Amino acid sequence: MIKVGVFGAGGRMGAEVCRAVMADEEVELVGAVDPTFSGQDLDSIAGISGSGLVVAGEPEALTKSGAEVAVDFTVAEAALANIEWCLSNAVHAVVGTTGITSAQLDALRAKQSKESKSNLLIAPNFAIGAVLMMEFARQAARFLPDAEIIELHHPGKKDAPSGTAIKTVEGISEVRKSKGISDESSEVLPGARGAEKDGVHIHSVRLPGLVAHQEVIFGGTGQTLSIRHDSTDRTSFMPGVLLAIKKIGSLDGVTIGLEHVLDLGL
Amino acid sequence: MIKVGVFGAGGRMGAEVCRAVMADEEVELVGAVDPTFSGQDLDSIAGISGSGLVVAGEPEALTKSGAEVAVDFTVAEAALANIEWCLSNAVHAVVGTTGITSAQLDALRAKQSKESKSNLLIAPNFAIGAVLMMEFARQAARFLPDAEIIELHHPGKKDAPSGTAIKTVEGISEVRKSKGISDESSEVLPGARGAEKDGVHIHSVRLPGLVAHQEVIFGGTGQTLSIRHDSTDRTSFMPGVLLAIKKIGSLDGVTIGLEHVLDLGL
Amino acid sequence: MIKVGVFGAGGRMGAEVCRAVMADEEVELVGAVDPTFSGQDLDSIAGISGSGLVVAGEPEALTKSGAEVAVDFTVAEAALANIEWCLSNAVHAVVGTTGITSAQLDALRAKQSKESKSNLLIAPNFAIGAVLMMEFARQAARFLPDAEIIELHHPGKKDAPSGTAIKTVEGISEVRKSKGISDESSEVLPGARGAEKDGVHIHSVRLPGLVAHQEVIFGGTGQTLSIRHDSTDRTSFMPGVLLAIKKIGSLDGVTIGLEHVLDLGL
Amino acid sequence: MIKVGVFGAGGRMGAEVCRAVMADEEVELVGAVDPTFSGQDLDSIAGISGSGLVVAGEPEALTKSGAEVAVDFTVAEAALANIEWCLSNAVHAVVGTTGITSAQLDALRAKQSKESKSNLLIAPNFAIGAVLMMEFARQAARFLPDAEIIELHHPGKKDAPSGTAIKTVEGISEVRKSKGISDESSEVLPGARGAEKDGVHIHSVRLPGLVAHQEVIFGGTGQTLSIRHDSTDRTSFMPGVLLAIKKIGSLDGVTIGLEHVLDLGL
Repeated sequence: MIKVGVFGAGGRMGAEVCRAVMADEEVELVGAVDPTFSGQDLDSIAGISGSGLVVAGEPEALTKSGAEVAVDFTVAEAALANIEWCLSNAVHAVVGTTGITSAQLDALRAKQSKESKSNLLIAPNFAIGAVLMMEFARQAARFLPDAEIIELHHPGKKDAPSGTAIKTVEGISEVRKSKGISDESSEVLPGARGAEKDGVHIHSVRLPGLVAHQEVIFGGTGQTLSIRHDSTDRTSFMPGVLLAIKKIGSLDGVTIGLEHVLDLGL
Repeated sequence: MIKVGVFGAGGRMGAEVCRAVMADEEVELVGAVDPTFSGQDLDSIAGISGSGLVVAGEPEALTKSGAEVAVDFTVAEAALANIEWCLSNAVHAVVGTTGITSAQLDALRAKQSKESKSNLLIAPNFAIGAVLMMEFARQAARFLPDAEIIELHHPGKKDAPSGTAIKTVEGISEVRKSKGISDESSEVLPGARGAEKDGVHIHSVRLPGLVAHQEVIFGGTGQTLSIRHDSTDRTSFMPGVLLAIKKIGSLDGVTIGLEHVLDLGL
Repeated sequence: MIKVGVFGAGGRMGAEVCRAVMADEEVELVGAVDPTFSGQDLDSIAGISGSGLVVAGEPEALTKSGAEVAVDFTVAEAALANIEWCLSNAVHAVVGTTGITSAQLDALRAKQSKESKSNLLIAPNFAIGAVLMMEFARQAARFLPDAEIIELHHPGKKDAPSGTAIKTVEGISEVRKSKGISDESSEVLPGARGAEKDGVHIHSVRLPGLVAHQEVIFGGTGQTLSIRHDSTDRTSFMPGVLLAIKKIGSLDGVTIGLEHVLDLGL
Repeated sequence: MIKVGVFGAGGRMGAEVCRAVMADEEVELVGAVDPTFSGQDLDSIAGISGSGLVVAGEPEALTKSGAEVAVDFTVAEAALANIEWCLSNAVHAVVGTTGITSAQLDALRAKQSKESKSNLLIAPNFAIGAVLMMEFARQAARFLPDAEIIELHHPGKKDAPSGTAIKTVEGISEVRKSKGISDESSEVLPGARGAEKDGVHIHSVRLPGLVAHQEVIFGGTGQTLSIRHDSTDRTSFMPGVLLAIKKIGSLDGVTIGLEHVLDLGL
């Protein structure tokens, strides 16, 4: 059993990771860290309990827990400190926290290659279905270059379009040979044709009742191909997190994106 | 049987109307007018034939055909002349031509009320499903004020958003009591949140393989309600045109919109 | 403020109702009943607290709470006893519990008309979007008689098709004049064309990741009209429950279905 | 330019192939065969014309046309004779005709390997989007074993489920390691859960207004992934047919399925 520590275990995502790790027979929860914790029983915090589980406010506590892999769903600043601690202490790090800059990432890469015995995996989206959606969109764009994206989220989402939509366009741009045909429309109302990136139009819908959804539509003569991912719950990330925990030991250094853990055969 | 004349019978829509009228047992095609016609057999033009059918280039030809109702799917300028001829000659007019201005419409209303014994029906969309979609959207907006519209069309469509989308928003605005909640998003790429009209966001997708489609999505706590119309063929307008032909005699003066012909009970 | 008591307050649905009632300024939670309760603080049970709130295991406790309306999301047997208590004690009852038989309903109607000063509303679905979907389907069927239903739920749902799907067909059957056209297909694999009720085919999809969804598709010449409801959370029922609480005083006797509380104007 | 002959050129599909071949600059239409033809000008039959084009009722006529590749969208019996003629005359054959049996296919394989200098490609679906849908479904099934298929067609379609749906299940079955979880539903109305093949449920919708559509839905914890292909016109097959014409010379012997011509990199 792989021994796992969880940073941010008091947050909604972190608590969910704790539950997922405890429910999987191939991995074991050995430590739970959160700045709001100070020796309480994790049971009273997040409904999680485990004999021998180390619960603490500081990363250092993971040392005595024997964690081989640590998972981080926190905020960028905390995540950076947690990742550095992992790399210095030969603990693999699986990170779903967003907002880490390219410069910070370069520094982490340098640190890992120079002094670390452990690996780092950072992924913007741990839902396996979302990763498949992005990969299929890449493949489809080689044959059907005309594509548009509709992404739909709850009204509390801060950015439009979503990071996943932008990453999807990057994949499409990389492979398609032409930008497809031009449409003849002119905007009667500004913004009607959405945002444009590399010739792909992106439309962001924000409504109550929505969670996180994206549809990529490809158009060809007399046909359309649509690839859609619907996420209705944060538990959708857990299979991807568990897979990353199990595979990170066999990765090499720093890896960005869950697609490198899935054996897509693409 | 109601005797029907068709303007623009040489065009794609007009020829389709001819075929639909001939296939319906309650109506009879008696005249086909098109500026490109000059005495040919309609059969060689559009695969339509009928004994006793008057085929001609000028509206006046409908006089001898005995037409009681005329259908016009042409272009705005021609349509105006055709409608005026109908009002002067006691022939009811069913019109699907777009681009007639409010001022022109006022003039037609004045002419009809002053001197005409026949009625006029103008509708932007004769697809019964599209009319139902717009009416259902009006109803839903009273209970679920948060709405967005996605309309999807072939790349040759000139305007974005579509006239149907704008008309849908007008219906929603008329009835809803509040504008719904505000989303917290800011546009990372301009246009991502689409066009906005009366607080309803509209997104226009243009791709090959699409024909004419619209989806209205309403969001509420933990739920969404979506109403979608897909038109895959111009034959979708024919049941609405036939219904209008049969009902126009019992309308009163000038009517705008097929919803007044459907007995929606709404 | 309308004083509200909640039966089954210890269950997931009941606890959600308690939270919804407490968050609404026009209603007040005065009593919470659940057989598993025995004088504890409701706070420790469901994260709900309120000064002066009566928490108890027996319906009788609602008497001293002064509840004017009681809400029941329990199981059929318990619900029957709770409803009878309400009718005997002049407390209006809003009921979302399913499985009450026609015979039991007749007995409740008789009891209400003979001896009660309070009203009863029973509804199979309190999601406003689902009620609108069913009503729109009724309307659409008058113009587009060809319809099929796809309902999609989580794998734990016991019945296929869902009660909402069956109720939708009943609405369609009531109004449509013809059964639409017959398809020419024969089943290569048995069951492919789904279940059939009154000439409407129903298809039940059961997959993890789904919650509760239904799409009604109407087909006409060259067009389809689709009405879809997606429920992603049990909070979707709360606006309907609150509306029912506020309106039940002005209803008359026994009412079945939330559509009678919504002023649909249909 | 590759010289192309078309069998069944008088049929709707064959005429479409003629038009597509004439519109592509890398291929040339040199022969059009149809039992209903006897020396007429193809122009009067299908609006197609070409100087030097051989139009005839018998396959033999393709000899003098110099055709290098022949395309067959006819019926099984005619197709077999046409394919045999091609194999005997060193003409590559691209075949979209359905209904050829396994035994007949074995005989064609034997004939090709023994005596032919030309290749044979048979594909049940030439729409590139449909082929991508099937391939993506195969890939997705490795990670998300729970899948159901909804296929939607016009009411004139003879078989339910469609051949494409069955082929999709075969692809899914080949790769998935488990059959996914079992749902707990029991059918209140028989057929509700659809047809079942290798543990995948298939639902066939038949309505006017539909053309040819298929959606494959994969369910995982808290998420679904949907892959949908919509075909609105028989022109959707043409890009696949043209690609097959251009690539068949570099294939080896007998090939089944357009996926072998697309360089999917899967």
